[in-house]
Parts: sequence; C-alpha cells; structure tokens
Amino acid sequence: MTISRPRGTRDFLPEDTRRRRNVENILRRVVRNWGFQEIITPTFESLELFTMKSGEGIVGELYNFTDKGEREMTLRPELTAPVMRMYVNEMQARQRPLKLFYFENCFRYERPQKGRFREFWQFGVELIGSDKADADAEVIALANEMLKAVGIRGDLHVNHLGVIRRLLSVLETGQQSKIMRLVDKKEYQALEDYLAEINAPSDLRMKLTELIDLTGNDAIEKARMLVGDIPELTTYQELLTLLDTYGVEYTIDFGIARGLDYYTGMVFEVYAEGLGAQKQVCGGGSYQLIKLFGGGEVPSTGFGLGFDRIMEVCTIEPEEAKPVVIIAMESTRLEAVKTAMQLRPYIPVHIDLMKRNFKAQLSYANYLEAGYAVIIGDKEAAAGKLMLKDMQSGEQELLTVEEVISKLAL
Amino acid sequence: MTISRPRGTRDFLPEDTRRRRNVENILRRVVRNWGFQEIITPTFESLELFTMKSGEGIVGELYNFTDKGEREMTLRPELTAPVMRMYVNEMQARQRPLKLFYFENCFRYERPQKGRFREFWQFGVELIGSDKADADAEVIALANEMLKAVGIRGDLHVNHLGVIRRLLSVLETGQQSKIMRLVDKKEYQALEDYLAEINAPSDLRMKLTELIDLTGNDAIEKARMLVGDIPELTTYQELLTLLDTYGVEYTIDFGIARGLDYYTGMVFEVYAEGLGAQKQVCGGGSYQLIKLFGGGEVPSTGFGLGFDRIMEVCTIEPEEAKPVVIIAMESTRLEAVKTAMQLRPYIPVHIDLMKRNFKAQLSYANYLEAGYAVIIGDKEAAAGKLMLKDMQSGEQELLTVEEVISKLAL
Repeated sequence: MTISRPRGTRDFLPEDTRRRRNVENILRRVVRNWGFQEIITPTFESLELFTMKSGEGIVGELYNFTDKGEREMTLRPELTAPVMRMYVNEMQARQRPLKLFYFENCFRYERPQKGRFREFWQFGVELIGSDKADADAEVIALANEMLKAVGIRGDLHVNHLGVIRRLLSVLETGQQSKIMRLVDKKEYQALEDYLAEINAPSDLRMKLTELIDLTGNDAIEKARMLVGDIPELTTYQELLTLLDTYGVEYTIDFGIARGLDYYTGMVFEVYAEGLGAQKQVCGGGSYQLIKLFGGGEVPSTGFGLGFDRIMEVCTIEPEEAKPVVIIAMESTRLEAVKTAMQLRPYIPVHIDLMKRNFKAQLSYANYLEAGYAVIIGDKEAAAGKLMLKDMQSGEQELLTVEEVISKLAL
Repeated sequence: MTISRPRGTRDFLPEDTRRRRNVENILRRVVRNWGFQEIITPTFESLELFTMKSGEGIVGELYNFTDKGEREMTLRPELTAPVMRMYVNEMQARQRPLKLFYFENCFRYERPQKGRFREFWQFGVELIGSDKADADAEVIALANEMLKAVGIRGDLHVNHLGVIRRLLSVLETGQQSKIMRLVDKKEYQALEDYLAEINAPSDLRMKLTELIDLTGNDAIEKARMLVGDIPELTTYQELLTLLDTYGVEYTIDFGIARGLDYYTGMVFEVYAEGLGAQKQVCGGGSYQLIKLFGGGEVPSTGFGLGFDRIMEVCTIEPEEAKPVVIIAMESTRLEAVKTAMQLRPYIPVHIDLMKRNFKAQLSYANYLEAGYAVIIGDKEAAAGKLMLKDMQSGEQELLTVEEVISKLAL
C-alpha cells in the first residue's frame, strides 16, 4: 500500500532542493557580511510561548498538540518568540546589540491553498538591544539587500507606528489594539463602523482616516499638518534619511500597521511582483517582547522573509559543475574506483554501480547530463591514462589523471 | 515569567551554530562530489509510515501525536522511511541508481540523557536501485570519507547478513527475526536461552555462537569452514575487495546484525573514540523497503550519520574572516553607512547602532574580536579616506576604501 505525505506538506526533489540551497546560501552570505550570526532553536516549543506573544486567538492557526507527557506543545509558527525566549534564557549577559539570524521551517494548521503550506520556511533577522533609528534602518536595508541578492525587485513600504499611536492615545488600550488590527487588514469599512461604535471623537476619526491613507514622498509633511510636529515624525524622518543613505528605495505608507501590540515603532513590508494575492515576501518592525518573556526592557527590531514565496519568484539557478561519469569494463572496475577517489576531491563523479555494459553506462552518463565521461578501457588502464570524452562535442583526449583534474577542477 | 525550552531539546548559540554549519558544509561538499543529490521531506509524517517499517513496537519511542484533523502523526524519527515514501510517490520514473542524501532533524520521545536528545540531526545517504556489491562498497567508502573529512577516526565494522540468514534459514521467520534482534543487541545469554527454548538443532546453535564471534582478517575463511562455500561469502569477499580498493580500513564482524528485518545483506557500523557508551556515529546497510511502501522490488543501500555525536568529537573550527567594525562620529554617521555598504560585499562589517561615543565603539569592536577597526573621523571624511586600525598590533594606516577592500577581502 502507498502512504501519502501529510496534507499541506511538500517533498523537495533534487532539482528543487539544489535551487533552494543555493538561494539559502546567497542569503546567508549577505546576512553574515552584515555581521549577523546564526542561531538554531527547537522545532517545537511550549504552546504558551506563542499565546503569550499573540494571544489565545492564535491557537486556531497553530499546528499544536498534546505530547505524551501531557504538555501543550506546538510546532513553531514563527521564530521571533523562540529567539526572544532563547535570549532571555541564555544570552542576556552578552553585550548589545546582538545581531542574530535564523533560517528554519515553521508550521501552521490551516486549509492548504496555493502558496500556503503547513510547513514553510522563514529566513529572519533579530537585532536585539537598540531602539535607535540606526538599528531600524540597518534591518530594512539588510532585507532590501537580501532580496536584491536573489534578484527580487520588491516594493518596500515603511511606516512608524509612533504617529498613529500618538493619535490614538486618547482611546483605551483595547480600543487602540482593535483599531490597529483593522488598519493592518485594511478593513476600512469595519474600522469606520468600530469608530462610530466606540464614539471616537469626530476630529480623531477624520484625522485617522486621512493619516492611514497617506503614502508617497510628501506624506511626512502632510502627516505633520495633520497631527502636528510630534517627536515621532522626527524619528521617522531620521529613519528615512538613513534609508536614503543606504540607497534603499521605499514608499512611505502610514497604512502599514502589522496588527500586533508588541510593535513599538518602525514597521515595514515588502511586496514582490508575480505572487498574486500572497505577494508579501517580507515583514518586520521594531518590537518589545523580551520583558514579556521575563527579561529586561530590551528593544528589538527584525524581520522575516518568506522563503517559499521568494523561491516562487526567484529565477536564480545554481552554478554547479556538471558531473563526470567514469565508464569502465568489467576488467577495469577497480581502476574506476581508484580514479573516482582521485577526482572526487575536485568534482562530482559517478561510477557504474549496476555492472552495466559500456553502452548502458554511456547512456546513463547522458541521462545524468554529465559534462564529461572518463573512459577506462584495458588499453587506457595499461597505459596509466584516461580517455576524457566531452559529452557535448564528442571530442576525446587521452590524459593522465592529473591532466584531467587540472582540466576539470573549478 | 520565563518560559523554558522543551525538555530534551537544545538552543544553539552563535558559536555552536557556526561550528555545526561548517561541519555540515564539509559533509555536504563530500557527498555532492560522490554524485549524491539532496532532497527534503516533511518534518512530520503519518505514524503508519514508521509502524509499517519497524512494527508497532516503535511507537513507544516516537514523538507522535494526534493532530487537529484526528490524524495519527509523528515527528520523523529517521529519514529512510520518508525517503522511500517519497521515492514511491514521486521518483519511480527516474533512471536508477538514484543517489540521494539528506541533512535533517529527527525526533524521539524518550528520557533525555547525556548525548541523547529529543531533537537530533542526521546526515544520511540512500542509494536506490542497485543490489550490487559496488553500490554497497560506494556507500561504505562514502561514510568513511565523510568522517575522515571532518577529522573523525572511526572504527568501521562490516558484515553481510546473507551468511547468518543462510544459517538460520531452517528456522521460522519469526524465530529468525527474534534471533537477529538478540544478536544485534549482543544479548548472548538471552540468545542461548531462546535457542534452547525453540529447540534449535545443536549443530546450528554451535555454529551460530561461533559465527557471530568471528571478526578480523581471517574471519571469511573461518566462516567458510563453518557454513561451507556459500555464494553469500563470495559476495561478502567481493565487497571487501572493493573496500580495499577504496582504501577503507574495516573490521570484518559477523556479530553486526542491525536487528531489523528489512536489511538484506551488507550492514556496517562505525564507532568513534571519546563518546563513551553512545559511540556509534554511523550505521547502515542494504535493505528492501520500497515494495513495502507500494513500489516495485527495488533494492537500496544507505546509511545515517549521527550529526550530534559527530559534533561532540569533531574539533574542526570554521575558518572565517574576523569582522571589521566601522567607528564613526555623530558627524560622520552617514559616511559610516556608505562605507559599510562598500565593504559588505567582501567582509563582515559592523557599524554603530547605539549612538555610542568613540571609546564605547572601540570597546564593542574589542568585544566582537574584530580584526580591524575602520575609523572615520571628520579629518578622514574630508580627505575621502579611512583610518584602518589593526586591532591586534594597534597599527594604523590611512587608506582609500578600495585599498581597504584589497587589503581585507579574502
């Protein structure tokens, strides 16, 4: 009987895996050169870690379960909470800022649909310990640089929540949270209804509606006219000046809210072409979670890249040496083994493992899209040489193993 | 309140992760040059996949759970069954042999103890489609080469189960399985008791006891005297000749059984020094699972390397460029950003994100163990130059950014 893979999960074939690992390595190289260091956390965590962060409402979306010890566990839905937990448990004594990154799988339990899987991958960055615009600018510029490195032209929208928070500060905390969530989801009708329901002052309603609609170059100026010359706008402007210096192209967008209470100031999202409705490939912002998890008042800023969506639009192909296939006779089988061992430090090499005849070995070499075949017949073996056959041109050369190495090694 | 990580799991700090990624990459380079291709399968699978392979008895050791759709799932305990499932579902049309590898996390539910974790990592190889000694020899030689590449001297024990299976062929299948499990666990007293209990012929009991004790250079000869000139011994000898050609050092060991019914012939294990009782770092063999999972009669051979145990004994340190820290004044902050962007394609670069003064920035550079500091004061900025300070020697040089790059880029 045949067993299927679990619903909403994927198997990655060799071609897929090669492409993914290549993009992963490019991203890793960029983030390391920005001075970030990788960490690894467990695949599952206590359910509580995520309900503390996002509220009980999140449980419906989680791949959670009760383990054999009757503990409420969940496959992690994201990495920010685990990284913060790890920081509190093990890294508080380190000098700040801490610049951390991860590349890991995450899980959600929801109806699988196009581009949304129950197991998916996130490449993310958390910068711990700075509340300065410099830190916010660095993470945005890094996200931008990572996307550029894998050939993705994204549309980057940035905001500073301090402005809208200042406007809403006359309301109760719960009301503010609800409004932020509605803004985040762009449910403007529901927002209007809610503002009416709570009897929000009409001046606030008018300003809010105008504010969240502000985008583009003069948005800061317009916001200043709307909410006055508040310090949050100065911080926002400082961030934008730094982004200009980094050479980041961005759109000011007062409608970006990220919806969750722990975001403290800067927030940003990046959308990529070619992804339809699920076009967001990156989201992040500055936040405060460490205190919630039992640590000090330590500000953080970071982002997550949706690796699967990146792979959907990324067209970068790995540059890899084509394999070499050694073709031998029954009498030169052991020669083939020895030759393979000499070539393998330099290039991918196959030898016959099926006791096939010459023709079948050559046909397998074609199937593998080998760049070269190395033919070891009795004559070649006796002369201590190899016949190197270019599989494209068909040309053959009689060479020593050293000559083959210097010809083929990258 | 503080949340702990789940029992038996680990967080990997930046230093740990760097070491692990480095060793992972070395292993990956070796296995790719042997012509193996990586695949990725889901982190969890249907429980049934593993009970079909190993029997209901395995459930006690699994990190299994009931999901929200009332499906019996488990975090994978190993990768061979998932790879075989994937082969049956998606890869049967490919030409054989298929040479696949994986590097993934696995899970077990058992009392955590030294060197045994609930989440652990396996680096493994499956060669699908050949039952020839050439395939068996290739995977053993590859395991040997991977361990050598990360500086581990292992003690490699090899066997061919055909010999003991031939001896036991007069017994019932269930009895044979039970005996193989007792041999595998080296429970020799229990084995004797069981042989007495099932009234095994005394000739068989004598031969079995002698056979499983045979190790060393003349073991094949002694086995031939014991069980006669059976074809399985010829295959065994062919395997050993190939291993000699590969330059693999091995110990013939008729006591290696691997305990599970799906192993068909060659089996091997590698033990490393310095690990105490949990010294096995690698185990593998030839097996038949594809038919069980609904595919054809396709022979396979492969192994798994216990990555965590390898990391325990491996002393290889990553060779990485020390970071550069750019030190700027308030007035040259934006210059620091621009310089960082010029250097980051080549080397890891930090800039100040905390608005620290000169002295505090230098002290952070020391904390980061920077190789160089790049100092940008007003004078340097005005001259379009950078002051490069060697953090070890204290020497300083006034250079252009291009000169810094050519001096520092690896």
